[in-house]
Amino acid sequence: MTDLNKLGQQAKESAYQLGLLDTATKNQLLAKMADALEANTPVILEANAQDLAKSDDYGIKETMKDRLRLTEERIKEMADGIRQVIQLPDPIGEVEKMWKNADGLMIGRQRVPLGVIGIIYESRPNVTTDAASLCFKTGNAVILRGGKEAFYSNQILVKILQDTLVANDFSPYAIQFIDDTSHAIANELMRLTEYLDVLIPRGGAGLIQRVKETATVPVIETGTGNNHVYVDKDAQLQMALDIAVNAKVQRPSVCNAIETLLVHQDVAEFFLPKLAETLDGQVEFRGDERALPFLPNASVATEEDWATEYLDYILAVKVVDSIEEAITHINRYNTKHSEAIVTDNYFASQKFLKEVDAAAVYVNASTRFTDGFVFGFGAEIGISTQKLHARGPMGLPELTSTKYIVYGDGQIRG
Amino acid sequence: MTDLNKLGQQAKESAYQLGLLDTATKNQLLAKMADALEANTPVILEANAQDLAKSDDYGIKETMKDRLRLTEERIKEMADGIRQVIQLPDPIGEVEKMWKNADGLMIGRQRVPLGVIGIIYESRPNVTTDAASLCFKTGNAVILRGGKEAFYSNQILVKILQDTLVANDFSPYAIQFIDDTSHAIANELMRLTEYLDVLIPRGGAGLIQRVKETATVPVIETGTGNNHVYVDKDAQLQMALDIAVNAKVQRPSVCNAIETLLVHQDVAEFFLPKLAETLDGQVEFRGDERALPFLPNASVATEEDWATEYLDYILAVKVVDSIEEAITHINRYNTKHSEAIVTDNYFASQKFLKEVDAAAVYVNASTRFTDGFVFGFGAEIGISTQKLHARGPMGLPELTSTKYIVYGDGQIRG
Repeated sequence: MTDLNKLGQQAKESAYQLGLLDTATKNQLLAKMADALEANTPVILEANAQDLAKSDDYGIKETMKDRLRLTEERIKEMADGIRQVIQLPDPIGEVEKMWKNADGLMIGRQRVPLGVIGIIYESRPNVTTDAASLCFKTGNAVILRGGKEAFYSNQILVKILQDTLVANDFSPYAIQFIDDTSHAIANELMRLTEYLDVLIPRGGAGLIQRVKETATVPVIETGTGNNHVYVDKDAQLQMALDIAVNAKVQRPSVCNAIETLLVHQDVAEFFLPKLAETLDGQVEFRGDERALPFLPNASVATEEDWATEYLDYILAVKVVDSIEEAITHINRYNTKHSEAIVTDNYFASQKFLKEVDAAAVYVNASTRFTDGFVFGFGAEIGISTQKLHARGPMGLPELTSTKYIVYGDGQIRG
Repeated sequence: MTDLNKLGQQAKESAYQLGLLDTATKNQLLAKMADALEANTPVILEANAQDLAKSDDYGIKETMKDRLRLTEERIKEMADGIRQVIQLPDPIGEVEKMWKNADGLMIGRQRVPLGVIGIIYESRPNVTTDAASLCFKTGNAVILRGGKEAFYSNQILVKILQDTLVANDFSPYAIQFIDDTSHAIANELMRLTEYLDVLIPRGGAGLIQRVKETATVPVIETGTGNNHVYVDKDAQLQMALDIAVNAKVQRPSVCNAIETLLVHQDVAEFFLPKLAETLDGQVEFRGDERALPFLPNASVATEEDWATEYLDYILAVKVVDSIEEAITHINRYNTKHSEAIVTDNYFASQKFLKEVDAAAVYVNASTRFTDGFVFGFGAEIGISTQKLHARGPMGLPELTSTKYIVYGDGQIRG
């Protein structure tokens, strides 16, 4: 039985040391971790083969198996991922602003690590090295709890990182792995208030819901995206078609793909048949009663469809009377992730940007751009769908906190 | 029985409308609220008299009774507090930065309201109008749950604010009050995940601990301050004395006062007798074995003393061998609020600023300065002692979230 309190205690002590490291030292350790991954390619592949051998027992689909499978090239990519993190600026220590107050105190707001970060995630083993290196770079100790599908891969990856730390006289507890894939231990992690400064769950709607109900530690919710494209009456129909198709099928299994298309009644009869034709045989349509006449082979959309993140080649379609109805529908059913309008109308674009409640709101662009790398952050630890602390793609600064440093010359309060 | 789901639903709808108001409209409504408070002075005093009449039943101390008592002047101060909020810049709508990414998308990060904020607080009725006006200014709906001691005062204050909203054709549900002072309803509020975007508890260690164990909604912990002044071997003793005395007795009942004084062994014999003399008869000392010889009438400090926020005229005192021992003691026992070193030594000051884990770390100044007004924020909704979202004194920007607004011209992801 894993003793989470022990892991938490170790992480806390390690976080303190880690928080005091300078950037050069952190980068040197990260470089050694990257080298160690490559040097240990055979044992990683061996562990990964153990996971793959079990994947049929777990009933894992072929597409997921592919994401789980490691190759020499993919291990090199993981190492290169760590090398990219080395190149990123270190936010720790930065004083964002400093001012003199009325008492003559110089007050500065300085970026510091969060402390101990817990991450619960699912299949892909590259998340292990990505998350570990991003947390390390920002001076945070991390406690990783991966899914059972990648258990052996994750375990060996963390062991290699820890061995590297020990070989370089640093605490291995900066990066820890929970050797237990039960729900019970995950729930315990969600309530480890004494040690965890934040928990980041990365996974499907089921995990996020469980975290919401269970967690008492500070949480950054990530990932679930029930997103929409709204085709306005003043849309350029070819642009709308390109954006809708891209947002739906370029990669349907990711959180920034769309699940429902909304179309203004004035253009539905022109737009929907083209959409149906373009995606014929590739996408299953579920339409409301006004959309159905323009969508051959579509089934009737139910209330549940509006609320579902399919992550699949399925698209719900609804015809709306107005932009107001589109915005109301979106704000009612979305998961506050990514939303787009296609329009040539200035006022419609401004209204949509202002009134739609989501982490990222687009005018005339695909929702698929919601991504830390694409936004230019150089890294991504996840996409926050909550409003506290971080919203949207999270880069290195989102893994930090602040403290006020105050320089006085004897001031007391009168 | 209060139906929190109903309050939550109403708050959510109201928050949506409130989020769309422009600054001038919000300020006009706030001005009318301020006027209405003054105009209703007699009924407020009447409700406050009801609270005061009950205060003996609740066993409230005289100092607390004083904080509960309203007068014509104090009601005017509450109204003026709202008028000060009107003067503050409105952070909503501000685009902090905007850049063009590699795909030619213009991406801006814009400040938006958090949505629905819950606040659990204790006795003082002025918190009701302060919190309501700060949340309103930042476009957030608020659900207030005050303590039983100020129940009638809080109730009438919220009613006056709501009546003002209704009289001006705005939803009264922007500012709601929970008509129930039971622990059960507070616990329910802590788990209202469907509606609350954040919960801010303002109160003592007991409340904060209960929130920590119970809350599943996002929380900003506030307030508890087990703070220290460390007198270094290179301190100017008169400055150290002034700062220690100010931090302890200028107002011992507040969260930025100190509870423990740490003194370097090299200066203990000079400093402690002066401290004892200065605070003789005013402060009860509890010392470790090395401090006791220099503190006449002191009792022996126990392990519990190091961890206690007295909020009273009591000071724990410990002699340390080194700055390292001081920092270790602080990081072990503090509540991450406010910490100060007194020293003339450059390296000691930098070490303390870097290694002490707290929201505000001071060199040669009293911890009593940790305060949103003193820091220059113009307002304060509380002092966060957690690391997520906000740390230290929280002003208006800490009551906001962000969203990315993205301007494209037809981009799709390749």
